Amino acid sequence: MRQIEVCFSPAVYHRFHNPDSIVVIVDILRATSAICTAFMNGAERIIPVGKLDEAKLLKNQGYLVAAERDGIVADFADFGNSPYNFKPGKIKGKTIVYSTTNGTKAIDLAKSSYRVVIGSFLNITALKNWLITEDKNVTILCSGWKDKFSLEDSIFAGALTEKLIESGHFETICDSSLAATDLWSVAKPDLLGYIQKAAQRDRLRKNGLDDVIEYCFTTDKTDIIPILSEDYLIDLKYCENTNNFFKKKIQVQ
Amino acid sequence: MRQIEVCFSPAVYHRFHNPDSIVVIVDILRATSAICTAFMNGAERIIPVGKLDEAKLLKNQGYLVAAERDGIVADFADFGNSPYNFKPGKIKGKTIVYSTTNGTKAIDLAKSSYRVVIGSFLNITALKNWLITEDKNVTILCSGWKDKFSLEDSIFAGALTEKLIESGHFETICDSSLAATDLWSVAKPDLLGYIQKAAQRDRLRKNGLDDVIEYCFTTDKTDIIPILSEDYLIDLKYCENTNNFFKKKIQVQ
Repeated sequence: MRQIEVCFSPAVYHRFHNPDSIVVIVDILRATSAICTAFMNGAERIIPVGKLDEAKLLKNQGYLVAAERDGIVADFADFGNSPYNFKPGKIKGKTIVYSTTNGTKAIDLAKSSYRVVIGSFLNITALKNWLITEDKNVTILCSGWKDKFSLEDSIFAGALTEKLIESGHFETICDSSLAATDLWSVAKPDLLGYIQKAAQRDRLRKNGLDDVIEYCFTTDKTDIIPILSEDYLIDLKYCENTNNFFKKKIQVQ
Repeated sequence: MRQIEVCFSPAVYHRFHNPDSIVVIVDILRATSAICTAFMNGAERIIPVGKLDEAKLLKNQGYLVAAERDGIVADFADFGNSPYNFKPGKIKGKTIVYSTTNGTKAIDLAKSSYRVVIGSFLNITALKNWLITEDKNVTILCSGWKDKFSLEDSIFAGALTEKLIESGHFETICDSSLAATDLWSVAKPDLLGYIQKAAQRDRLRKNGLDDVIEYCFTTDKTDIIPILSEDYLIDLKYCENTNNFFKKKIQVQ
């Protein structure tokens, strides 16, 4: 039976790392919801970068850049990480450089795993179906907020854990998976009401950015699974021929 | 209104540290339950030490030593950290050197806080009452298992958070406090049944150490609050005259 583990903070990921596992990166408000939206709306690839300096450098090289810290858009960036920014007219066929407070750090930590994929409520069922087809253990890595536990990421981890266990292909003996599943069972009957409690929501409201909550908790708007291939995120369906795809489409600088 | 925060892992404590807060250390299975039991049964003080080498050195100096790693008693130690080892006949009036996998690490991390106290179900109401009388914010630090999230520590954190909020003197906007409270609400109706799920229980069973679970989830067996005073844990009621108490009783080597 395959195992599921949930890691509540990037600061604890060293205790979960397994080079043979698939890692699902979660940052519901808002990085992974925005990344799923970007691919849904036709983005070709996303370059996650940890440091703002690096994002700025790539902006100067002509890339479209989404970058923010603490919910505030970086002054040199084209936009921040609200999913609403990733409109087809702006991003279709484009490569986007993406840097956020928490999400890109988690991607970076997990990159030596078997596969790194992006999870959100927007693609949860597609993700569950794909994870079932792969013969690997799964680690769900919650991005949290500056290493702190995040309620919305943990609830998503619980929802995905529940789906995977219900499939009959997975089990868990991990305390944090069990906790995440219980939190999901508390939240599920009134998901939006529940998330009002989250500290993250207060932060978002303070920055006038809380308009995306309902959207970010909508399930199954897309079948796309963003996957890390070398240093880029692409749509999983292009992953098998990653090198050809990149050579044909984009000359990396 | 005073604030409560819950930290699920020593690896994240740097994000919670506040030199003006009271930190409650929690390691339900079994360090903090055993420490409360030791004072209940007449121990005079406990010296928490992180490293086994240090515990061995103190053993050679004549101290009574409780030391284990991964649930296995160290070969030089007098006993491990089952609360059942701390019998009055063995420990009354004694100083005990104490080293465990997780609990002593958490104490060490928090020692520059305003106060560090030891929490368990055994002293939860006394602890709640004392925290209400102090005019300080509270951080509940779960020891976890080698930096991983622990269900039993988190449930205790939820129980204590609920009591403090019900007192009307505290509030929380911390995601992990909210999660802990929700986990406690799920666990409360059948606490022992719930804890069967915890990974820690599997570890304890493997080592034949699961006989203490029912005891460690018993509430209010004592009014004693162990508190860190310099590098030692003592009963809070001796804390005001710590230096005199130590000088009179024991010559530290």
